[in-house]
Amino acid sequence: MINKFCKVPLWECNDRLVRVAQGEEPADTVIRHARLVSVTTHEILEDADIAIASGRVAYLGLEGHTAEHCIGEATTVIDAHGLYAAPGLIDTHMHIESSMVGPSEFARGVVPHGTVGVYADPHEVANVRGLAGVRAMWDDAGRTPLKTMLTTPSCVPATRGVEDTGSSIDAAQVAETMMWDETVGLGEMMNFPGILGCDKNTMDEVRETLKADRPVTGHYVAPDMDRGLCAYVAAGVTSCHESGTFDEVLAKLRMGMYVQLRQGSAWLNLPGYLPQLVASGVDTSRCLLCTDDSHPHTIVSDGHMDRVLRECVRLGLDPVTALQMCTINAATYLGLGLDMGSVTPGKCADIVLFGDLGAFDARMVFIDGDLVAQDGEALFEVEPYQWPRFMTNTMNLGMRVTPETFRIPVDKPDGKCKVRAISVISGDTLTHEAAVEVPVVDGALCADGERDILKACVFDRHHGAAGTHAFGFVTGFGIHGALAQTVSHDAHNLLVMGDNDEDMALAAQTLAECGGGEVAVMDGQVLALVELPVCGLMSDGRIEEVAAQVGRAEEAWKTMGCDLPSPFMTMGVMSLAVVPNLRLTNRGYVNAVTFEQEPLLLE
Amino acid sequence: MINKFCKVPLWECNDRLVRVAQGEEPADTVIRHARLVSVTTHEILEDADIAIASGRVAYLGLEGHTAEHCIGEATTVIDAHGLYAAPGLIDTHMHIESSMVGPSEFARGVVPHGTVGVYADPHEVANVRGLAGVRAMWDDAGRTPLKTMLTTPSCVPATRGVEDTGSSIDAAQVAETMMWDETVGLGEMMNFPGILGCDKNTMDEVRETLKADRPVTGHYVAPDMDRGLCAYVAAGVTSCHESGTFDEVLAKLRMGMYVQLRQGSAWLNLPGYLPQLVASGVDTSRCLLCTDDSHPHTIVSDGHMDRVLRECVRLGLDPVTALQMCTINAATYLGLGLDMGSVTPGKCADIVLFGDLGAFDARMVFIDGDLVAQDGEALFEVEPYQWPRFMTNTMNLGMRVTPETFRIPVDKPDGKCKVRAISVISGDTLTHEAAVEVPVVDGALCADGERDILKACVFDRHHGAAGTHAFGFVTGFGIHGALAQTVSHDAHNLLVMGDNDEDMALAAQTLAECGGGEVAVMDGQVLALVELPVCGLMSDGRIEEVAAQVGRAEEAWKTMGCDLPSPFMTMGVMSLAVVPNLRLTNRGYVNAVTFEQEPLLLE
Repeated sequence: MINKFCKVPLWECNDRLVRVAQGEEPADTVIRHARLVSVTTHEILEDADIAIASGRVAYLGLEGHTAEHCIGEATTVIDAHGLYAAPGLIDTHMHIESSMVGPSEFARGVVPHGTVGVYADPHEVANVRGLAGVRAMWDDAGRTPLKTMLTTPSCVPATRGVEDTGSSIDAAQVAETMMWDETVGLGEMMNFPGILGCDKNTMDEVRETLKADRPVTGHYVAPDMDRGLCAYVAAGVTSCHESGTFDEVLAKLRMGMYVQLRQGSAWLNLPGYLPQLVASGVDTSRCLLCTDDSHPHTIVSDGHMDRVLRECVRLGLDPVTALQMCTINAATYLGLGLDMGSVTPGKCADIVLFGDLGAFDARMVFIDGDLVAQDGEALFEVEPYQWPRFMTNTMNLGMRVTPETFRIPVDKPDGKCKVRAISVISGDTLTHEAAVEVPVVDGALCADGERDILKACVFDRHHGAAGTHAFGFVTGFGIHGALAQTVSHDAHNLLVMGDNDEDMALAAQTLAECGGGEVAVMDGQVLALVELPVCGLMSDGRIEEVAAQVGRAEEAWKTMGCDLPSPFMTMGVMSLAVVPNLRLTNRGYVNAVTFEQEPLLLE
Repeated sequence: MINKFCKVPLWECNDRLVRVAQGEEPADTVIRHARLVSVTTHEILEDADIAIASGRVAYLGLEGHTAEHCIGEATTVIDAHGLYAAPGLIDTHMHIESSMVGPSEFARGVVPHGTVGVYADPHEVANVRGLAGVRAMWDDAGRTPLKTMLTTPSCVPATRGVEDTGSSIDAAQVAETMMWDETVGLGEMMNFPGILGCDKNTMDEVRETLKADRPVTGHYVAPDMDRGLCAYVAAGVTSCHESGTFDEVLAKLRMGMYVQLRQGSAWLNLPGYLPQLVASGVDTSRCLLCTDDSHPHTIVSDGHMDRVLRECVRLGLDPVTALQMCTINAATYLGLGLDMGSVTPGKCADIVLFGDLGAFDARMVFIDGDLVAQDGEALFEVEPYQWPRFMTNTMNLGMRVTPETFRIPVDKPDGKCKVRAISVISGDTLTHEAAVEVPVVDGALCADGERDILKACVFDRHHGAAGTHAFGFVTGFGIHGALAQTVSHDAHNLLVMGDNDEDMALAAQTLAECGGGEVAVMDGQVLALVELPVCGLMSDGRIEEVAAQVGRAEEAWKTMGCDLPSPFMTMGVMSLAVVPNLRLTNRGYVNAVTFEQEPLLLE
């Protein structure tokens, strides 16, 4: 695949590179005396010089050869004595939306950590604003040096017929995106039941991608590592980031898949399989690294791919192999190996200088030969992006929410009534179905905060007055007050839950007015608000501010009585109708195993 | 790169593969109970089942799972108990012309040895008949199951201005071939001086290939592993098969190149670096295997890629790593990894069943799911190819050669005269320049057989009466009689040498009349003749017959007094003006270092 993310295509600058390598023309930049991490040979080469011209590596001085002959008057010379020079880091599967900031701000956050490229799947924005939303994101992304490579969302909506989303993408649109310069593949094909059932649109999306000579990235979570996995791979899916155990990793590698080993903010998979992978001696050339989801506070506090590398090394993987997984293996998977993934002649000069290969402390980061970050700070400044109005005008409830909105009338005498409830599990995306008794007061079902039974409501926020909302109950959060959020996978409708209708109304209305986000309300007071006005998913501010807001929201959860880890994440998947068992969407309860709707009342 | 060598593109058959994997439709073929060589994990998986449909792998039964559910009434079931199932072997750089038979006959020779694909560079035919000749070759190749993948010859002619060839290929023509279904890359870029000097046509050939998103394969023999190699790689060349030592292999791997480890008929490089490579522990995922040149008797007697694998294992490489080098690494290099290189779901069912992983004895060979060879015999039969007349009418001397033709008049008195001579080196492509004294008789320079000084003459065989011929002397062969051949790199003109003009005339005229080839003449008798009427390079007969003819020619060399190994090869590069030091072309002596012409007389 031709890489459109280089400053200059190789065929436009190879004359110059040839001359620079031979000392006939000066380089733009020369990095001297580095310890070069050779990911092609799995070596560390002492005292290496790197000459850069036209954004690419022109010359490598090894084994006592220097780049002195490439230095002219205008050449920038960097002494990297004591530093390791590694290829720039690539995240092979991720969602920018999880960082709660836009692409350019995300870039400002991750590039100082050594990340030079991401294979981004804008699944969340696509569910809200479709391909137009994706285009807007990439218009922002294009303003920074980060190579933000698009994998077209494949499952928009994730399911059909059980909820209402803001948009959809079909196979014809997938084919259209394959013509875009930014597109490198198809995003995670979560609809493995659709693949196994040969659903036409699902298979057509795969076929359009294959015809465009681009890889189909995967997401396979079924326990069947035999026929189901074979069928999924035979369809043309060539990678997967959804593995929980070493047996799953191994099964997928044996099937020829590239396996993206994942360490996100919420999904900490590396400890679950990496030590065994190291011990096994299995070939790791088809292992990749990814974050999938990095929250703003993770990026600000812990980093990005550097954080994943540290965890790899902590778990016993040697640092050069770990670097291979997020550099050359990553570039090879997407067919970008001619341009990226190693510090060798002709390749883009995407280079990170680390002080230490266990700490992975990025001292300097180069993209296409330009120094873009130093000592933890981005050296590029981008103005706040002026999002088009359709991207910031996505709270379309078609109604004003009041306490009365949350009244659930029921044809029952006052007293108790048995209802279906979602029982959440601490630190897991799974939910269970519970049967609980809730009070009936004045002909309406009520929450029962003392017994940790909250009322929940999901509002279609995409279709205005034509939209619907539906009620359910949830247990496991243990709060007093109300919480609301528009980051609510995968339709990202407005989800509200609480133990009283007044706080719920204030929470809902607060988000309706600020354009979406996350809010915590108790006793008529807004305790914390994370404003995410871009599609109700992303802030238009700085990542540090958003991280601080999220921190205050987490404090608010505790104040309200919740002791779950990452309750925001747990709440964020309450509507996720593709993961078992019971979910609540704007159409009501969904059994996420049968994909049938379920009634609220059990009697 | 989209692979055009599959029976059915994946996007046309993935529905069926999905159904077959799940037992909803029977497979075409099921291989049972094999020891599967997993090149993706570097493992051998015991008792594996492989279900094949539409020419591709639909299902792998591992870890106790079987393919019984894929077997229907019409399914062919093969019991591979005790056999190893490996991906089909790929030769990553080779010239079919070296086998002295056409592509379909070559396929019949190598497929029974487990070869399923070759990256072929028709450099020799292209020098004689240009792209039209290449097209004719691939029309023949297309009649067999062997995946004969074209790398467009990049150096036709190899040099300009010092000899006359039958044809030429320029950058515009390279660009044209990149549109052909058969083309997978640019053939060995031998003109590294042209790259280092930024020669426009040479660089344009590279650029046209890069623009077509195909790899530029290399051939770099300069001793400079520093600036020169960097410049060559920075230009866009991504592989090299010309390494003599481990240091060269390592230098190229560090520069990001794929290194084709070579074991041809004449160039036996593996012993020179493989043991050190094994001992080094360097990453081998960018190491490939190739033959470059396989003579007919090598193929008939010893095999093809199986022979290379045996040598790898003999030299200490583990067999799975060796297999990786000619399967998955090979497919990955050319961007064909989605379709070839491993026995995994969705891939072409190119599979070899070996009895032993040291002997690499191919028992059954499948290409695109079809059993194409068994127990050393091809199961496909192709009619002799009816070559178009322009391919078999390439001896165009424009004259009848007589003893008088070889008279070298000289303006000297009878006696002795000091002349320049080519001194050949046993088993090497290099030559030296020697100063020798030859007799002057009746105003003409003569050979001196007793002192091993032969007269040599190269005739332009491409331009008829307009063509020229030139004389030289050669020492080191030690024969009595005359030898002639049209396999004479790279212009493949008619080269004749001998110790008397009568035998030389008979040799030359014999080849002129039979369409080219190789002939040995002594005392007025033709001792051996290898007829190669297709471009003067390839027979139109069976490979076994050609191998026998070559055997008789080698016997003749011995009869005539030569004790060099492979004297035919040594003679075949006497005109090769790109390898140091002194060469003879139809224009006279060429200094292959300065590319200047040199006079015959030294006084």
